Amino acid sequence: MAGNSFGNLFKLSTFGESHGEALGGVIDGCPAGISLDLSKIQLDLDRRKPGQSAIVTQRKEPDEVRFLSGIFEGKTTGTPIGFIIENTNQKSHDYSHIKDSYRPSHADYVYEKKYGFRDYRGGGRSSARETASRVVAGAVAKQMLEGVKINAFVSSVGNIHLEKPYTELDLANAETNIVRCPDTDLAAKMENYIKQIRKEGDTVGGVVTCVIQNVPVGLGEPVFDKLHAELGKAMLSINAVKGFEYGSGFPGAEMKGSQHNDLYNADGTTKTNYSGGIQGGISNGMDIYFRVAFKPVATIMQTQKTIDNKGEEVEMQGKGRHDPCVVPRAVPIVEAMAALVLADYTLINNSYLHKR
Amino acid sequence: MAGNSFGNLFKLSTFGESHGEALGGVIDGCPAGISLDLSKIQLDLDRRKPGQSAIVTQRKEPDEVRFLSGIFEGKTTGTPIGFIIENTNQKSHDYSHIKDSYRPSHADYVYEKKYGFRDYRGGGRSSARETASRVVAGAVAKQMLEGVKINAFVSSVGNIHLEKPYTELDLANAETNIVRCPDTDLAAKMENYIKQIRKEGDTVGGVVTCVIQNVPVGLGEPVFDKLHAELGKAMLSINAVKGFEYGSGFPGAEMKGSQHNDLYNADGTTKTNYSGGIQGGISNGMDIYFRVAFKPVATIMQTQKTIDNKGEEVEMQGKGRHDPCVVPRAVPIVEAMAALVLADYTLINNSYLHKR
Amino acid sequence: MAGNSFGNLFKLSTFGESHGEALGGVIDGCPAGISLDLSKIQLDLDRRKPGQSAIVTQRKEPDEVRFLSGIFEGKTTGTPIGFIIENTNQKSHDYSHIKDSYRPSHADYVYEKKYGFRDYRGGGRSSARETASRVVAGAVAKQMLEGVKINAFVSSVGNIHLEKPYTELDLANAETNIVRCPDTDLAAKMENYIKQIRKEGDTVGGVVTCVIQNVPVGLGEPVFDKLHAELGKAMLSINAVKGFEYGSGFPGAEMKGSQHNDLYNADGTTKTNYSGGIQGGISNGMDIYFRVAFKPVATIMQTQKTIDNKGEEVEMQGKGRHDPCVVPRAVPIVEAMAALVLADYTLINNSYLHKR
Amino acid sequence: MAGNSFGNLFKLSTFGESHGEALGGVIDGCPAGISLDLSKIQLDLDRRKPGQSAIVTQRKEPDEVRFLSGIFEGKTTGTPIGFIIENTNQKSHDYSHIKDSYRPSHADYVYEKKYGFRDYRGGGRSSARETASRVVAGAVAKQMLEGVKINAFVSSVGNIHLEKPYTELDLANAETNIVRCPDTDLAAKMENYIKQIRKEGDTVGGVVTCVIQNVPVGLGEPVFDKLHAELGKAMLSINAVKGFEYGSGFPGAEMKGSQHNDLYNADGTTKTNYSGGIQGGISNGMDIYFRVAFKPVATIMQTQKTIDNKGEEVEMQGKGRHDPCVVPRAVPIVEAMAALVLADYTLINNSYLHKR
Repeated sequence: MAGNSFGNLFKLSTFGESHGEALGGVIDGCPAGISLDLSKIQLDLDRRKPGQSAIVTQRKEPDEVRFLSGIFEGKTTGTPIGFIIENTNQKSHDYSHIKDSYRPSHADYVYEKKYGFRDYRGGGRSSARETASRVVAGAVAKQMLEGVKINAFVSSVGNIHLEKPYTELDLANAETNIVRCPDTDLAAKMENYIKQIRKEGDTVGGVVTCVIQNVPVGLGEPVFDKLHAELGKAMLSINAVKGFEYGSGFPGAEMKGSQHNDLYNADGTTKTNYSGGIQGGISNGMDIYFRVAFKPVATIMQTQKTIDNKGEEVEMQGKGRHDPCVVPRAVPIVEAMAALVLADYTLINNSYLHKR
Repeated sequence: MAGNSFGNLFKLSTFGESHGEALGGVIDGCPAGISLDLSKIQLDLDRRKPGQSAIVTQRKEPDEVRFLSGIFEGKTTGTPIGFIIENTNQKSHDYSHIKDSYRPSHADYVYEKKYGFRDYRGGGRSSARETASRVVAGAVAKQMLEGVKINAFVSSVGNIHLEKPYTELDLANAETNIVRCPDTDLAAKMENYIKQIRKEGDTVGGVVTCVIQNVPVGLGEPVFDKLHAELGKAMLSINAVKGFEYGSGFPGAEMKGSQHNDLYNADGTTKTNYSGGIQGGISNGMDIYFRVAFKPVATIMQTQKTIDNKGEEVEMQGKGRHDPCVVPRAVPIVEAMAALVLADYTLINNSYLHKR
Repeated sequence: MAGNSFGNLFKLSTFGESHGEALGGVIDGCPAGISLDLSKIQLDLDRRKPGQSAIVTQRKEPDEVRFLSGIFEGKTTGTPIGFIIENTNQKSHDYSHIKDSYRPSHADYVYEKKYGFRDYRGGGRSSARETASRVVAGAVAKQMLEGVKINAFVSSVGNIHLEKPYTELDLANAETNIVRCPDTDLAAKMENYIKQIRKEGDTVGGVVTCVIQNVPVGLGEPVFDKLHAELGKAMLSINAVKGFEYGSGFPGAEMKGSQHNDLYNADGTTKTNYSGGIQGGISNGMDIYFRVAFKPVATIMQTQKTIDNKGEEVEMQGKGRHDPCVVPRAVPIVEAMAALVLADYTLINNSYLHKR
Repeated sequence: MAGNSFGNLFKLSTFGESHGEALGGVIDGCPAGISLDLSKIQLDLDRRKPGQSAIVTQRKEPDEVRFLSGIFEGKTTGTPIGFIIENTNQKSHDYSHIKDSYRPSHADYVYEKKYGFRDYRGGGRSSARETASRVVAGAVAKQMLEGVKINAFVSSVGNIHLEKPYTELDLANAETNIVRCPDTDLAAKMENYIKQIRKEGDTVGGVVTCVIQNVPVGLGEPVFDKLHAELGKAMLSINAVKGFEYGSGFPGAEMKGSQHNDLYNADGTTKTNYSGGIQGGISNGMDIYFRVAFKPVATIMQTQKTIDNKGEEVEMQGKGRHDPCVVPRAVPIVEAMAALVLADYTLINNSYLHKR
């Protein structure tokens, strides 16, 4: 209820602050008998970690995960998988300047009002560092979802947009460049733009697109827990996300029914896919695809006016090592959350199928 | 888990098919002692009901709610509020032509695959008729949320967009026209466009914007259950919704941090509100606003090709009485879901505050 | 959270007060495709209903269930099963004498303190009349649990105890007498005792034993949701229940390990069954059996001293039509709750099995 | 759903196997601003730990808890409290003899059937070692429940029963002897009996009684989540528990209503307390008391016949360091689970009270 768990049957609970002792989580409900390749989990963590390239924060954190339970002789046992990631680079002194002040468009102010006081060392619990735990759990979920392909990539940085439909791109190319955009020419432009933004001491927003293939028909629950509703919640729960659309999305709202309807082929596939692989909240076997909008990072390397906890105006100097653009590191987080949603709905769906 | 409940502490469970005996629901967790004005609840139902104007479906359903429990001498008792809405206009024979065929971009196909068979009389459980129960519960939630103002309105129909910011409009005007757009000139244009679309036997999508005012600071739970994540899920769970954005939304992803950051006034309010009233998933006391994209209704009055449950191609003739554009009737549904989210988070937040 | 729902994947939510318009409930998560024999459901309701014999309350309520959704052409559709039971015999005037006074060992006092006011017409929500909804849902669950046999029966009335182990009795005999004790000689003694108690204007407690056979190995979740823990909660949630024990129970606490351990046969069955069919919270395929203690009904036909809501001492005269002993009518309720637990754990267990 | 979490608003999730790397848990929903005395938490762990006295297992485990998050400058922050307890004494070789065999009345057989394979090093997840995490969380809950007194103690060992009512005893005496019985004379007898049982290579069961004082009126939710139902589930979830009764319990089922009814004093207290402080599932301000029956530990130091995973009969020699009687170490576990239930219901109840 307090917001630190995700999922129903395949459930992740996370804990940890950016400058506490450790982050971690518990995956409850992962079925027994799944052979886990731990190196793949670390690989996803490495795709998210700070310091991985010239266009992300230069903070150094190894982000090594230590599994404490739930795995025996290389396989899941059906019991909870507990894990921790030690915080090895807690430069608390970096944050003394914000102890009593509220950073604009950060959660400092609301945390203090909601909880009465706050851990002022960095973002604490509201830091995107928490998403490391999600990446671990998502990487486990991916291994459970044998055959399903989840590919996220950067489709916009500021005003630079990938216009080509994903069906005309080799999505594997996304991992060949540090922006994680599958159009490598565009990726180079995005990279240059991010570098320029960094020089200005500024930040910029962007969009991550995610494509999920080979999903069986029938995942998703009707009415309140529609598959896209839960995917939307999952994405909107990621730090800095401002919007979610799937299939035809906002542009679909401008269309006519006669254009937008996806007509069937004889095998139950559809000739078009404005539905985005989901009808009535349930997967129909076509590709699921959606777009996730990220705002520009709130921490900028420029001086900003703000207030302190006495309501006095103060000047705040940008400091520390932050991302000029969050989307390259957000790609594995989007994938992880998608995997968690699919794993959960797979188990829910299984529960009803057994008898038939 | 099966998707028919919404909320945690203020919880709605709904039941009922479009052509079954009755719809209904149970509201569990509504605090005791709230004086309920039942006429306001019926009023919201009337805003949603079919047949209310020239631009919506001409199907006639009185949609009268009967409360069965949880209210005593005009006040809530703290026990579950059960209610039903009888289906009085179940023209099952209207649907015989779709018994064995799958309507394009409807849920017929996926329901049959997921459940092994389906109630073929209309949309069954996937029909938007289910939202009548949401409107009842939302109207109860609104009465619990004393002082909070929730105003949804139509901001786009097809390519006709309301460009003025909501702060320059009198939102009360939305209820003065049948489109429910607060710019009455634009509303007239939208109305004409919808009438033209209907003549073509076609349908068109649109956007509903919702503004929530006077929300106290502190609602929303961090990490997975951020206030905007739950609002997003709530909206995406409404039939035909394809996208959700709050505050700066997708356009925010094109901005720089130096533009996008909301600087504080001395009283904790902000000079701009790109955050949309939510920071780190928690309300900050500013207006909450968001946009919800609806696809064009899938049922069109034109002949379409489709397949039957043997995989044979068949022609399907548009029949029945359907909405040419769903957004005017969606306005009270968006408000209802917003009210349910806020009621739930109010109770969750209260639970922690008591000691302080 | 407010306590009106039971189960996770096979979930029942109930509503309704003893003197409101109607009782009812929603069963969410029942798998699709189960052929439902509605007459069996009514039969269980009839086993619970008032007025059925000379030793229960003579209040007349037909307790007829009306299904509103989730069933189509005789089969469950996988959507929520909503149902109501109209209250046809609401003699509110019977209760005017308790409007301002607290009946001893009833919930009047705590409801008023918890909720600020209460529906004073009878027990309201705390009335055992609510269990009619449980019986409906339990009867649906029983039909899902094909092959599993659930037999509850009366094993004690006051000091009259059934000493024979259940394995030496024909449990079907329980339904041949109005006490519902499978030892018909003892049943006659119990019946006479209850009649004598009624003459005294008094009431008496009793014990219901339940035996569940043909449960597959593997139901139940370890640690907090052990099968017997959930069975215990289910039974303790029934009105008037004071205790629960399974397998060897309280007497088992006096035994030595060398006596108590259940040694295995080669086929995995055990030579003894002190475990009560459950080891480590998981069914082992042996008979599950447990005992449920019911206190004497608090409403007696004698004058009692009590207080009113101003703290003044008042005399309260016993009135109305109440059960002298609740256990005969509790038998179908115990079975219903057991069925709900097993249905829920069956679905949970299925969810993990699918891949293997 | 998979059974490793307890509570709704004050929620504990645990992980860890007896012979894995570490145990641990996450407490989610603990309100912010509670000053935590960490030494009191360790004290409760020490009351549970092995090797603490001559009548418990001589296995040595320091059971030191390390908190990873959720506490800042000595106070809870409102974010999840993650903690781990490293396993320092994992003598896996002790368990090689049970790798392929099923210990009688242990969970080996059902785990293997349910999960397809099992962590055969000791009890794995089914080991009572998991309860260390519960004790940590319970000790946090106790500190939230200011003013509430929770006292558990041993009331039976085998056939040696404490007959005096708890109201005639100084419950603080329970902690003055290694049996944890507040009647010190009886404690000496119990101690001798346990020592004799150990010499026989046998084990014996017992009963723990728990008394909770100063609980405010109004905790507990009606119908399915009655306070005693959740307490019952909490206790039945503890390893080796076979029964639960509160207030008059099983003996209450032999009583008449005229004896059993608790008559009110003018201040709302009652003259007797057969209700055990709970009416209709809601606390009434009187002492809450209940009894929990524990079976004899299944591991005995005698040779037993059993089967292996091929269904072959094998002889199993008792080995290792086990408790001859589990109740002295169970006392802090019972208290911890009671504290978790009360903390959860306190938050749930608060959520509804705020407006009034």
